Amino acid sequence: MNNFTFYNPTKLIFGKGTISSLATEIPSGKRILITFGGGSVKGNGVYDQVKEALKHHTYFEFWGIEPNPSVETLREAIKLGKEKNCDFVLAVGGGSVVDGSKLVAAGIIYSGDPWEIILKRDYTMSKTLPLAAVITLPATGSEMNRGAVISNKATKEKFAFYSDYPVFSILDPETTYTLPQFQVACGLADTFVHVIEQYLTTPGQSPLMDRWAEGILKTIVEIAPKIKKNQSDYDTMSTFMLSATMALNGFISMGVSQDWATHMIGHELTALHGLTHAHTLTIILPGTMRILKDEKRDKILQYGNRIFGIDESNPDKAIELTIRKTEELFISMGFKIKLSENNIGEETISEISKRFKERNFKLGENRSVDWKVAAEILKSVL
Amino acid sequence: MNNFTFYNPTKLIFGKGTISSLATEIPSGKRILITFGGGSVKGNGVYDQVKEALKHHTYFEFWGIEPNPSVETLREAIKLGKEKNCDFVLAVGGGSVVDGSKLVAAGIIYSGDPWEIILKRDYTMSKTLPLAAVITLPATGSEMNRGAVISNKATKEKFAFYSDYPVFSILDPETTYTLPQFQVACGLADTFVHVIEQYLTTPGQSPLMDRWAEGILKTIVEIAPKIKKNQSDYDTMSTFMLSATMALNGFISMGVSQDWATHMIGHELTALHGLTHAHTLTIILPGTMRILKDEKRDKILQYGNRIFGIDESNPDKAIELTIRKTEELFISMGFKIKLSENNIGEETISEISKRFKERNFKLGENRSVDWKVAAEILKSVL
Repeated sequence: MNNFTFYNPTKLIFGKGTISSLATEIPSGKRILITFGGGSVKGNGVYDQVKEALKHHTYFEFWGIEPNPSVETLREAIKLGKEKNCDFVLAVGGGSVVDGSKLVAAGIIYSGDPWEIILKRDYTMSKTLPLAAVITLPATGSEMNRGAVISNKATKEKFAFYSDYPVFSILDPETTYTLPQFQVACGLADTFVHVIEQYLTTPGQSPLMDRWAEGILKTIVEIAPKIKKNQSDYDTMSTFMLSATMALNGFISMGVSQDWATHMIGHELTALHGLTHAHTLTIILPGTMRILKDEKRDKILQYGNRIFGIDESNPDKAIELTIRKTEELFISMGFKIKLSENNIGEETISEISKRFKERNFKLGENRSVDWKVAAEILKSVL
Repeated sequence: MNNFTFYNPTKLIFGKGTISSLATEIPSGKRILITFGGGSVKGNGVYDQVKEALKHHTYFEFWGIEPNPSVETLREAIKLGKEKNCDFVLAVGGGSVVDGSKLVAAGIIYSGDPWEIILKRDYTMSKTLPLAAVITLPATGSEMNRGAVISNKATKEKFAFYSDYPVFSILDPETTYTLPQFQVACGLADTFVHVIEQYLTTPGQSPLMDRWAEGILKTIVEIAPKIKKNQSDYDTMSTFMLSATMALNGFISMGVSQDWATHMIGHELTALHGLTHAHTLTIILPGTMRILKDEKRDKILQYGNRIFGIDESNPDKAIELTIRKTEELFISMGFKIKLSENNIGEETISEISKRFKERNFKLGENRSVDWKVAAEILKSVL
């Protein structure tokens, strides 16, 4: 096991009717900037619950943080927060709203342009306003970690930065009942691949972390078909919501190495073709597994056996069966997992491998995914 | 799933050589009271590492916090801390030292007698000095939770109280190599039964928490025989240490009910006969399972199947097999799991059921363990 430091001070407030706890969780003297996405919270009752809970607080609303939140939009939110002397930020929405609000919480008390904060990459030791979240879409885990990904439309850049943890996050599974089916599928796939990136690495690093990662994977495999049939079952949606948060809050990565090559290749598909992030992961992951099957051999076998119950003595056959099971899982969620099915062809592969070459990328756990290997991965999922 | 609030701000610093990080983790101006147990840290190098790390700090040493720490001893530590104007407490040792130090951290800035703090039971909202720990015996989980159990020799009472979380805890698996084999066995059993108390309850409350609890149980089953053979394998001892902390820090109890009847009956065996806490659990748990086998039927079947691979179609046979496997596990660790093997007889059963009757105890998840059921449990393990 590798040495590690684990620290996660976010308070998780989970369950039916918990949005009302905003009334007591946010100190009464605070001037709150509430940040929202496009407006779905007005349809599902969340907006009304937030307003009711904060009726004795002073707050200001900022609407319109978009998927893949842009610094251009966030500058406007920061401007409003500065004008109103806000000293608390409350994000209400999905992962993009929370991600964007991490920059807003830092930017309101920063004198320069907020993009400078992103360029620092690690802002964890710097001062930000306290941030809290009411999460309505289980997927990114942003509600209980300190990461955020912010885009810059002007420079066509998209960077991750690390800030402070949310002070608290409220997760009410009932808010997920009305989510579009595709968003739910994306949340499930995103959760699954977040875990895979922390799990499908060198075997034997931590038997306990393996079990916990497998616990989330197995749970997603079990609930995905149930959710497809009924998106309003409280226990199933609770399990989904809890799994998404636990997939990227550090609980399954203690003392183990990580990979993230699939994510990095997927990001390019989003940048070039606008594909939803989780969708790109469902396309790339089977390719990563096939091309890196020697490097990841023993862990793929463990994954296949423990998650899909594959009991095939020939390792090559077992690996191929495992990859197919993974593909079938994503297909069952409703994804088109081949590039060609998404009108993406050879020219995109050339473009991505060109970019990787220019940036001298060596990705993945063992830094083995360079521009050539990335091209192989993409070709394998054409 | 039940509504829940999860919060655990303890920073975990884990791995080889991490005791040296005390130098930077404790602010340089602090006046530290370092609390120790009986002196084993002088034999295993931990004391020297702590001294080296804190050579530029101001600190005072208090020695002699005993197993089942008593308020009588802790009053002395508090007196020293007050005299020296200490504003930071560092516990170095096992769970008893950390438990006792929770009272010390509260008591140094409390004007009355420390036993008054215990009688408040919930001291979580009250002010305490910052407490940190260097843990040398994986077992209680005290290094990452806010509970502590303190004894009063004068009044023959033993109560739990809840205080603040340690600010940070340092876990170096190499410190466990020289632990006596019986203490290691106790740590393994304690960890196992901590998980069982949060797991062997109503089924289906949280499939994910089930998987995580099972992850720890399965891990303990796998490492116990390895540790018996070789107590100096770094990876195995790391896994043990991490499992012990994760067993009682709230990570596996989100949204699920708990039991703790086995613990409550076990406490009486310690009180009456001085049996080590973990040893009492290995005696009582099989009895609790047998007597409550109808109430816990489905979960025992799940536990048997997933932890011991029991694949028996007759549920009654499967339950009995599962209980036997649990007994065999404890026996393999070196415990004598029958009351009679420990020179405990009918008169103790009468005394415990008398005490339970007087206190009007109704214990366990469903409050079904009263004095009569407690007696049945004890008789079944005679």
